[in-house]
Amino acid sequence: MSELKVPKWNKKHLLGITELDKSEIEIILDQAASFKEVLSRPIPKVPALRGITVAMLFCEPSTRTKLSFDLAAKRIGADTMSLAMASSSFVKGETLRDTLLNIEAMRAEMVVIRHSCSGAPHMLAKWGKASIINAGDGFHEHPTQALLDTFTVQEKLGRIKGLNVSIVGDISHSRVAMSNILALTKLGANVTVCGPKTMIPMGIDKLGINITYDIKDAVHKADVVNILRIQRERQEEAFFPSSREYAEHFGVNKALLKKYAKKDVVIMHPGPINREIELSNDVADGEHSVILEQVTNGVAVRMAIIFLLSHFHMHSEAEK
Amino acid sequence: MSELKVPKWNKKHLLGITELDKSEIEIILDQAASFKEVLSRPIPKVPALRGITVAMLFCEPSTRTKLSFDLAAKRIGADTMSLAMASSSFVKGETLRDTLLNIEAMRAEMVVIRHSCSGAPHMLAKWGKASIINAGDGFHEHPTQALLDTFTVQEKLGRIKGLNVSIVGDISHSRVAMSNILALTKLGANVTVCGPKTMIPMGIDKLGINITYDIKDAVHKADVVNILRIQRERQEEAFFPSSREYAEHFGVNKALLKKYAKKDVVIMHPGPINREIELSNDVADGEHSVILEQVTNGVAVRMAIIFLLSHFHMHSEAEK
Amino acid sequence: MSELKVPKWNKKHLLGITELDKSEIEIILDQAASFKEVLSRPIPKVPALRGITVAMLFCEPSTRTKLSFDLAAKRIGADTMSLAMASSSFVKGETLRDTLLNIEAMRAEMVVIRHSCSGAPHMLAKWGKASIINAGDGFHEHPTQALLDTFTVQEKLGRIKGLNVSIVGDISHSRVAMSNILALTKLGANVTVCGPKTMIPMGIDKLGINITYDIKDAVHKADVVNILRIQRERQEEAFFPSSREYAEHFGVNKALLKKYAKKDVVIMHPGPINREIELSNDVADGEHSVILEQVTNGVAVRMAIIFLLSHFHMHSEAEK
Repeated sequence: MSELKVPKWNKKHLLGITELDKSEIEIILDQAASFKEVLSRPIPKVPALRGITVAMLFCEPSTRTKLSFDLAAKRIGADTMSLAMASSSFVKGETLRDTLLNIEAMRAEMVVIRHSCSGAPHMLAKWGKASIINAGDGFHEHPTQALLDTFTVQEKLGRIKGLNVSIVGDISHSRVAMSNILALTKLGANVTVCGPKTMIPMGIDKLGINITYDIKDAVHKADVVNILRIQRERQEEAFFPSSREYAEHFGVNKALLKKYAKKDVVIMHPGPINREIELSNDVADGEHSVILEQVTNGVAVRMAIIFLLSHFHMHSEAEK
Repeated sequence: MSELKVPKWNKKHLLGITELDKSEIEIILDQAASFKEVLSRPIPKVPALRGITVAMLFCEPSTRTKLSFDLAAKRIGADTMSLAMASSSFVKGETLRDTLLNIEAMRAEMVVIRHSCSGAPHMLAKWGKASIINAGDGFHEHPTQALLDTFTVQEKLGRIKGLNVSIVGDISHSRVAMSNILALTKLGANVTVCGPKTMIPMGIDKLGINITYDIKDAVHKADVVNILRIQRERQEEAFFPSSREYAEHFGVNKALLKKYAKKDVVIMHPGPINREIELSNDVADGEHSVILEQVTNGVAVRMAIIFLLSHFHMHSEAEK
Repeated sequence: MSELKVPKWNKKHLLGITELDKSEIEIILDQAASFKEVLSRPIPKVPALRGITVAMLFCEPSTRTKLSFDLAAKRIGADTMSLAMASSSFVKGETLRDTLLNIEAMRAEMVVIRHSCSGAPHMLAKWGKASIINAGDGFHEHPTQALLDTFTVQEKLGRIKGLNVSIVGDISHSRVAMSNILALTKLGANVTVCGPKTMIPMGIDKLGINITYDIKDAVHKADVVNILRIQRERQEEAFFPSSREYAEHFGVNKALLKKYAKKDVVIMHPGPINREIELSNDVADGEHSVILEQVTNGVAVRMAIIFLLSHFHMHSEAEK
């Protein structure tokens, strides 16, 4: 399989898009394309990483992201082990470090971590020898989501450079938004963020992006609209009055697209969708939506990342 | 392995016994017999379904049924993925549909679902492309339990046709009872249901079965007595005064069998048993009981079902 | 692989160190050494037990011990199945027995059990046909922990016989302490236990060990100090006034070691560590600590045990 040659890759961890440059992002996207082809085969697996163990350290109950990583690891021939842990047991940094060192002592070469504290993956990368993959840290980054979003856009529209991409939602509290902004601007897209004023962080325009508080502006001229999940729990904190009001002012629906959007606009959502709140049913299930392709691509992108990072841990024949 | 030839099977889903005719039930039972032989081998596996992924979508915490399906899938060479979900997150049908579409986007060809709402598997079958296997829906059906019960009876007594089978317990709220009644009558058994009047639904005799409120009647002449688990939680609702009273009037024990039953009566229970309530220890562990064989046969029957349905998803060489 | 010859082993279960004699402990330690070599290979697996299924019956949420057993089983080529069960559902012995018989009916040859009741593994061994491995039962035994501790000492110091080993902590409520005392004395070590008077059981000196209530005595002359985890929950019961007071009187730290310990003393802890309570950071992470090697060795020792017990279940070719 020619696609399993190792490209010129020299990062040990995937901590965030912050740490990647344009060419590194492109290597990941190219590798993911190879694995997407693998996933379409009768037997959607390659035994590339026999002997590599990937540990899943998720502080939240089993999620789609965990499932996607688990499938990705297995379909590339790695073993997985899973630690279900309450965030509470991580209150002290030492405990998290001990957990990492224990995982490594059981011979896991890679750790996929989701943690409610921003920066937790970076601490792990300092403490241990394993490759660390950030599966979402607090309000900070969610790099694999941004990479699968970028992969999906490129697959759909053939390029990223020069595209107008709007991201709609609670930008202040979204690690998905932050990682997408970083990836898209590094690849040369024009990014616009849109949401209620209470949900757009001050000074975010310094990242080289546009801000609008009007959904019509965000949709108009956009090649891609990436709609974030509204955390309904957070509404209690009164960033906006109600779900209904959010839907009315920032919800994306067919009428809005018809009136303001390009005919071939691409609609994305990281899932799970709050239907009829941030996104109407007719758009979520409509011709513009690539939401389910994002899910498929998520497995391919995560296979690519595990594959690339594994080369820091492949044991040479000499070690035998 | 000659048993792995594909019989003339053309159903994509296993939604209920309702949807199966006599010859389809017989194909499943024949196929299960082949897999029971596989399970007795030194290495109890066949690599028949390499490349097929079976998703387990259980709304209740891990149960024996889930374990049985998981073992069945793995022993036939399929991969499994598991989604632990609270029923509460399925309040809206859309969410369940989105979950299905996400599972399919991650390339699962089959979904085993247990759900507290009757008809949930049928909705899934309409919404997606995967084969759906009903692992119990509300008070509606539990077809794999009925198939493994039927398989066990046939294995033990050589036939189903003409046998007298009594089902004892809360018939009104039992998906096991309903699926068993349907399977047994389709195969030509004479079925009698027995329980307190509050637990026998009005008009159930229209299914072509007998009703009795006297355990002695149910046991007398029966070739098989299938005893349901009493949901002790439900006693609170006062269908009958107490566990002790239930045990006294409807519990099956050695004295009852000695006095009224055939000498070679077969005693079944879907588990887990409330010992000394619906079933006494001496009968549960006695010579008539086939309760543990039911558990073994459950794996073989589920292998058969996964195998038969998988032929809607086997990728031809041409696809390569 | 010459190390996979079966040594002269004739125990079906691993219930406790109580049931093992010196030569049996030595067979396990030798076998573990072979598997430790396997774990250092590029692909840390041997397909020794294809067709064997190991069931994990843990009454507590997923722990490091469960993960270690699961990895051990998989790296030796066995399949695993996991039953998450609340201790509460085991209130009646019958239920635990039924669970065992169900597991066996699904064709598991081995059951690893952790249970809050002392003696639960022994009951399982009486009830069924599977090999039972005790992964910790109440305040009774935790034999695999003692075996991995012993293996680590032998690996580090070349022998057990004649060594001075001190065990520090709540000896009364520690299955780790009990299993270690039994293993070490059988192999000829001189064992000293140390803790507050409220935590040393009356009459324990009858096991042929020394008692001290002074940490300085315990550390002085010791070749190995094995420090137990303080159950902080239990402090509420007022065995000692506070964590701080415990740390002051029985905590092991660098100053203490410098003043009283041998230069090459070996420091052990079964994990997880309460840092700065029973053990200071500088010692836990310092040159004397073998704590992470204990974790690595845990997998090798558990592989050895599963391998040795499996020979009661290997199906001969004739069975085909």
